[in-house]
Amino acid sequence: MKRFALLAAAALAAPLAAQTPAITQPAAPSPPPTPIKVDPFVAKLRDAALQDDLAYEITEGLTTEVGQRLAATEAEARGRTWAVAKLKALGFRNVRVEPFTMPVWVRGQETAEITAPFPQKLELTALGNSAATPPQGITAPVVVFREYNDLLAAPDGSLRGKIAYIGHDMAPTQDGSSYGAYGVARRAGPAIASRKGAVAVVIRSIGTDEQRLPHTGGTNFPAGVQPIPAAALSHSDANQLERIAARGKPVTMRLVLTPRQLGRGESGNVVAEIPGTDRNAGVVLIGGHLDSWDLGTGAIDDASGLGITTAAAKRIMDSGRRPRRTIRVVWFGAEEVGVFGGRAYAQAHGGERHDTAAESDFGADRIWRFETNFLPGAKAVTDRLGAALSPLGISRGTGRAGDGADVGPMFALGTPAVDLNQSGERYFDIHHTPDDTLERVDKEQLRQNVAAWTAMLAVVAYAPEELGPVPVAK
Amino acid sequence: MKRFALLAAAALAAPLAAQTPAITQPAAPSPPPTPIKVDPFVAKLRDAALQDDLAYEITEGLTTEVGQRLAATEAEARGRTWAVAKLKALGFRNVRVEPFTMPVWVRGQETAEITAPFPQKLELTALGNSAATPPQGITAPVVVFREYNDLLAAPDGSLRGKIAYIGHDMAPTQDGSSYGAYGVARRAGPAIASRKGAVAVVIRSIGTDEQRLPHTGGTNFPAGVQPIPAAALSHSDANQLERIAARGKPVTMRLVLTPRQLGRGESGNVVAEIPGTDRNAGVVLIGGHLDSWDLGTGAIDDASGLGITTAAAKRIMDSGRRPRRTIRVVWFGAEEVGVFGGRAYAQAHGGERHDTAAESDFGADRIWRFETNFLPGAKAVTDRLGAALSPLGISRGTGRAGDGADVGPMFALGTPAVDLNQSGERYFDIHHTPDDTLERVDKEQLRQNVAAWTAMLAVVAYAPEELGPVPVAK
Repeated sequence: MKRFALLAAAALAAPLAAQTPAITQPAAPSPPPTPIKVDPFVAKLRDAALQDDLAYEITEGLTTEVGQRLAATEAEARGRTWAVAKLKALGFRNVRVEPFTMPVWVRGQETAEITAPFPQKLELTALGNSAATPPQGITAPVVVFREYNDLLAAPDGSLRGKIAYIGHDMAPTQDGSSYGAYGVARRAGPAIASRKGAVAVVIRSIGTDEQRLPHTGGTNFPAGVQPIPAAALSHSDANQLERIAARGKPVTMRLVLTPRQLGRGESGNVVAEIPGTDRNAGVVLIGGHLDSWDLGTGAIDDASGLGITTAAAKRIMDSGRRPRRTIRVVWFGAEEVGVFGGRAYAQAHGGERHDTAAESDFGADRIWRFETNFLPGAKAVTDRLGAALSPLGISRGTGRAGDGADVGPMFALGTPAVDLNQSGERYFDIHHTPDDTLERVDKEQLRQNVAAWTAMLAVVAYAPEELGPVPVAK
Repeated sequence: MKRFALLAAAALAAPLAAQTPAITQPAAPSPPPTPIKVDPFVAKLRDAALQDDLAYEITEGLTTEVGQRLAATEAEARGRTWAVAKLKALGFRNVRVEPFTMPVWVRGQETAEITAPFPQKLELTALGNSAATPPQGITAPVVVFREYNDLLAAPDGSLRGKIAYIGHDMAPTQDGSSYGAYGVARRAGPAIASRKGAVAVVIRSIGTDEQRLPHTGGTNFPAGVQPIPAAALSHSDANQLERIAARGKPVTMRLVLTPRQLGRGESGNVVAEIPGTDRNAGVVLIGGHLDSWDLGTGAIDDASGLGITTAAAKRIMDSGRRPRRTIRVVWFGAEEVGVFGGRAYAQAHGGERHDTAAESDFGADRIWRFETNFLPGAKAVTDRLGAALSPLGISRGTGRAGDGADVGPMFALGTPAVDLNQSGERYFDIHHTPDDTLERVDKEQLRQNVAAWTAMLAVVAYAPEELGPVPVAK
């Protein structure tokens, strides 16, 4: 998850929030007046990558042979074992797990039904960090808030003994920016409902489909706020609840949610390298996250991001020309539940020079735009990158860069960013649902991603220019 | 469900099978050389129906205020209460419930996981008439049959102690005909697996999507065959199981299914009429089925069929001209689980003259074709009907008619059929899944249906010609 996810993560992880960067170049660079010739080395690697099979092989393998990979569970640990074996087999150097510990939340039973006025079951799923109901569930009247702001306006204490429902229906955008504005209902809504006395909260899934599959995702109960059971209804079920409530009769719901907090457990980042020729040139950090939510198999979120970045790095490894900068591929642990892997990485490696960080974590659909925020003296690198990406249908953005939750903590330390923006038009139809499976990955669009990442590495990892550190916006 | 469903129903209901009609007109009528003028009464009613709101109102109301309506459960009973109130409020005459009894099957818990070689959960749902596992489930090796014929070829006893998996992947067709050919894996596969010694069976859902929602539906264990637990995997999960099996390591699955047979219970047909002017002219029987599977809210299967046919009849009622024939609207009970309502209707009313029977039970998408099998002397009725339907984009079919599981028993007695064929291109994406909800209903296509049914009634219920009885194919 990208910029908006970083914001989401920041909401989950208050200590990080203060460091969250909002990096803007002084002025968006104008496109060069005449076309820049693309280095044949770059062009050849890029074009060959359009036939890539490795990204799909990694995505297929991880989702099939491991399946879901909820953070700090034995499934994620199997994922790390799989990752180490795969990265070693591909020929990467210094392949290792860098472990860290974190609080562990696991899903339990989850059912809901309207008991009055029209008895029927509803489909929902607990949000990460949800508290549990008693095993027999709770039954309470439902207060319907169609918008998040309506919840904010509810008087203190007005939800005592009630289940709060929050609508706040999200529309898709190509850049995924609506996730920031609408996701607040999931990230902050449950804590607000708790403060106002609610015994539980159900939200409309943060997603853009109208299907019968709920979207999970993390919520946050800050210190001093009583955690309450919190779940997301599928869009069909949210519509149904709103239709029923619109009849004007009191609505009562029974809710059974039995997730558990298991205390601290172990997760880890899997790190692999292609050593560069110049030890002082800084690391190019790329990757995605290995963990996933537990409902699907984490194909678009984020096995495909691992496949794309690893396949691109492998092409550089096999190119016959060692890069100037060390390329470090990281399969981050525990992103979904609070960017624990990204923060552990920055803690361990923040002192090393990094000259670029970039993450693929927005599905597997085609890249349509790129962004960089290199030092002004490296404008030519961005120009060369633009020329190399243009034949893939990728245009230059507005000069704001810094996507990627896991690499966010490195941006906060001044590492320059390269964003390769994937189309978000269908991403939030599937995001965090049971439907995040291999079937959602389009092989041709996946290959376009690999070509773009290969071209990016072929330009950036070899560039003689200094790229950073860049100023960090406060 | 249409012709193919009738076959399915026949498979479920052996006593009916012998009567299943396959009615073919001697020759498909050629279209008339010159356009027939459409009676202004018919044209006006048809065109006004393109603004219909009643069909949607019925579909929305039933799915919202009752929800799922599994046959012979209290939910279906609430559906009958809702139906009687609605049909009376609309002004229909002789509104009544005609009860009947039937065996009752209800769903229980349903979970599955692959325990080796790659542990992970799978999404599935029990098939109607499935037996139960012990409460703690069963764990057994899986034998993968990619095609139904591969199962047929397996030696007797070869599945002893095993869970059989049947693939048999279905493709969509506009006329839905693939349901007959592929649905056999669900209808007959479990019994065959049981005969060969299997302790349970999981099938690829009979459906045309690649989503994470399984399709339920009835299966049948004939007398003498041991019922075994039987469930359908979602297409994503079936793909996953096939991918895992393709790795070549033995696959073991744990399955928990706790459905129950509750003995006999009560269901019923809801009947409503518009009395005709000529008591001897025969009834025009139309309708759909009130019951639904329990996973969704039965919007396209078949609340929309009730909405379409009832809205069309209401337009005739309000037209200012009483029809010659009595129009009888029936909301049949218990279709999904064995066409109990359709058989009860024929038993009660088979002795009354019926001059047409027609059912809407294939979703809510647009009608593209019509069929009739009236007596040769009523060719002019079919011609007039063709002229009236043509402006709606509906063409004449090949002269084979007789769709509709619930009206099938009446066809078997010689009642002429009118089929108004809806497009099946997306029907089996949703059919029998939790996703069969109001969101799947397209209001504009629903209106086209109402216009076609209104035109059909405006032609057929007023026609002076004798339409039947027609010969019943043996």
